[in-house]
Amino acid sequence: MKLKIALLEGDGIGPEVVAQAVKCLQAVEETFNHQFSYENALIGAAAIDKKGTPLPNDTLGLCKKSDAILFGAIGSPKYDDDPDTQVRPEQGLLRLREELGLFANIRPVKVFPTLIDRSPLKKEIINTTDFIIYRELTGGIYFGEKKLSDDGSVASDLCEYSEKEINRITHLAFKAAKTRRKKLTLVDKANVLESSRLWRRVVAKVGESYPEVMLDFLFVDNAAMQIVLNPSQFDVILTENLFGDILSDESSVIGGSIGLLPSASIGSEYAMFEPIHGSYPQAEGKDIANPIACIFSAAMLLEHFGLKEESKAVIRAVNKSLKNNFVTPDLNKKSKYGTNHVGDFIAGNIVD
Amino acid sequence: MKLKIALLEGDGIGPEVVAQAVKCLQAVEETFNHQFSYENALIGAAAIDKKGTPLPNDTLGLCKKSDAILFGAIGSPKYDDDPDTQVRPEQGLLRLREELGLFANIRPVKVFPTLIDRSPLKKEIINTTDFIIYRELTGGIYFGEKKLSDDGSVASDLCEYSEKEINRITHLAFKAAKTRRKKLTLVDKANVLESSRLWRRVVAKVGESYPEVMLDFLFVDNAAMQIVLNPSQFDVILTENLFGDILSDESSVIGGSIGLLPSASIGSEYAMFEPIHGSYPQAEGKDIANPIACIFSAAMLLEHFGLKEESKAVIRAVNKSLKNNFVTPDLNKKSKYGTNHVGDFIAGNIVD
Ligand SMILES: CC(C)[C@H](C(=O)O)[C@@H](O)C(=O)O
Ligand SMILES: CC(C)[C@H](C(=O)O)[C@@H](O)C(=O)O
Repeated sequence: MKLKIALLEGDGIGPEVVAQAVKCLQAVEETFNHQFSYENALIGAAAIDKKGTPLPNDTLGLCKKSDAILFGAIGSPKYDDDPDTQVRPEQGLLRLREELGLFANIRPVKVFPTLIDRSPLKKEIINTTDFIIYRELTGGIYFGEKKLSDDGSVASDLCEYSEKEINRITHLAFKAAKTRRKKLTLVDKANVLESSRLWRRVVAKVGESYPEVMLDFLFVDNAAMQIVLNPSQFDVILTENLFGDILSDESSVIGGSIGLLPSASIGSEYAMFEPIHGSYPQAEGKDIANPIACIFSAAMLLEHFGLKEESKAVIRAVNKSLKNNFVTPDLNKKSKYGTNHVGDFIAGNIVD
Repeated sequence: MKLKIALLEGDGIGPEVVAQAVKCLQAVEETFNHQFSYENALIGAAAIDKKGTPLPNDTLGLCKKSDAILFGAIGSPKYDDDPDTQVRPEQGLLRLREELGLFANIRPVKVFPTLIDRSPLKKEIINTTDFIIYRELTGGIYFGEKKLSDDGSVASDLCEYSEKEINRITHLAFKAAKTRRKKLTLVDKANVLESSRLWRRVVAKVGESYPEVMLDFLFVDNAAMQIVLNPSQFDVILTENLFGDILSDESSVIGGSIGLLPSASIGSEYAMFEPIHGSYPQAEGKDIANPIACIFSAAMLLEHFGLKEESKAVIRAVNKSLKNNFVTPDLNKKSKYGTNHVGDFIAGNIVD
């Protein structure tokens, strides 16, 4: 298979982890006889610094003519703490999601047996945890009208959803549930929000076409509790943009390391794959960043294109590095292996 | 001291737990020679069933002429799962907050040594956890304009904040931090929301008057992670309405039992005290509900009126019940003590 892959390394540790994922993709090319091509473009703080905008036109152009995007990380302390900054790295990511119509963010939450003791949660609670979050990514309060009164004393954000926006991601989530444990939980705040009540109505309606999937509803405050109390109860969680942002980050701590978790952002035309950890600026350039989340993101990319064996080969290689403790210092304080070492080890262990 | 206390028992287990808190308040009256009077009024599903509205006028009237309100719980499955219900129990609570101007919801999050093993989190992580959440309660997306298009296909909710709304709760939160470990964390989503950027500006400004308090900022997604990863880092968390709803429920699991956690909702004229657990309809009428959260809420009420010794006496009596395992079955499966037993025990142990 031929694939054109756009590499948006972004900020902080982004470039370092993307480099390891590319090593793995190259190993897959060789082992399985595919032809992937890679092209880099700027995004985020790196793009602001060099081009004055967090999403330059040629970056967007490259994404549009690529089959898939592998994304590193975004954000820089330089732009973080000042509420008056006009240009923010995050705007690049948000505009990219919007321009490419990446309406579904998909995050698997799993526990790795070798890492279970690292979790802040007790073993018996997370033993069998294995769920997946479908977060709506191009609607809601992220993209609704924002206002600031002339005297700067009143500010507002609009959270708006249409039936159509809810429909499309809901179908994806139900389809996923069908191939899994057949349970879908809609998280909303329907006791307060009009938009949440629309979500409930639409999801209930769509659910009629998936009679084999059990549908239930959970208020977001209760969901935030349940994810810690009993994460194993979930199979597929479906939710709107902001709730998904909060709950998927909360969920990311279950497995004991955020450095392992990948994500996919899917639209009807484009697809982007991204580790969920941030730009982690304190680690930049130190060769200590954990590349596994980005490598798993590459595995999700392969799976997206139907390359199941290839994806499994990558996952096997990662598991080997975990089992052999060939990991970065975040997973093992005494480890002498850096980002590059671990990337090499995993790439070197990709076999059919 | 004379105090007129309105009792809004509400739904589910509300009446049962309020009854125990009243026993304790009566014990305080006797022991410390005070005169409290109590008057009941309907709210929530109970009020809908009897009067067709979740907040009848005489309930609001009673609250306005009382010194304080002790609140049970609200919500009934009867009204929960149907997105098309027009009258919802929760509306009663929301309108009450608005009408009484209860702009600050205050929730202490603490770990009880005798219960530490019940937490889903590991002991070493929560050992020293002791923080308090200041949640804005009468603004934001809860009270912003709600719209549903005529054909029902588009719905929206407006999240709006004014400088004034942010100011008043921010002062309360800083004052609390001054008497504690002198750290205040504002939780927002300033990288996306205009309203969050206003929060950051206003809070930074107010912070200049409290130079002894260290102020920091955290994005809400990161906060949702940190609360599980390292809850002991927090002293005072300040946040807007919806984020506060989510994060305070998430935080409530840290201590190992939501059945213990009280809250206060404060305005410039009125004050309401309420256990944070819900109406727990499955337990209604079974004499198994844990009354401690409501009793602690009564202790917060006493403290609010400067009755420190009285408040401490209540807390001591609760601790005695915990130490002696004189608790409801949620805290000890083998326990034969019911809601009433535990209420009697605690009330009976209130001494100067
Ligand atoms: C960087 C930020 C705008 C973004 C979001 O809130 O969507 C991030 O937190 C994420 O979840 O991808
Ligand atoms: C019942 C509901 C409307 C309420 C809220 O969201 O404020 C509750 O969850 C709370 O936190 O008091």
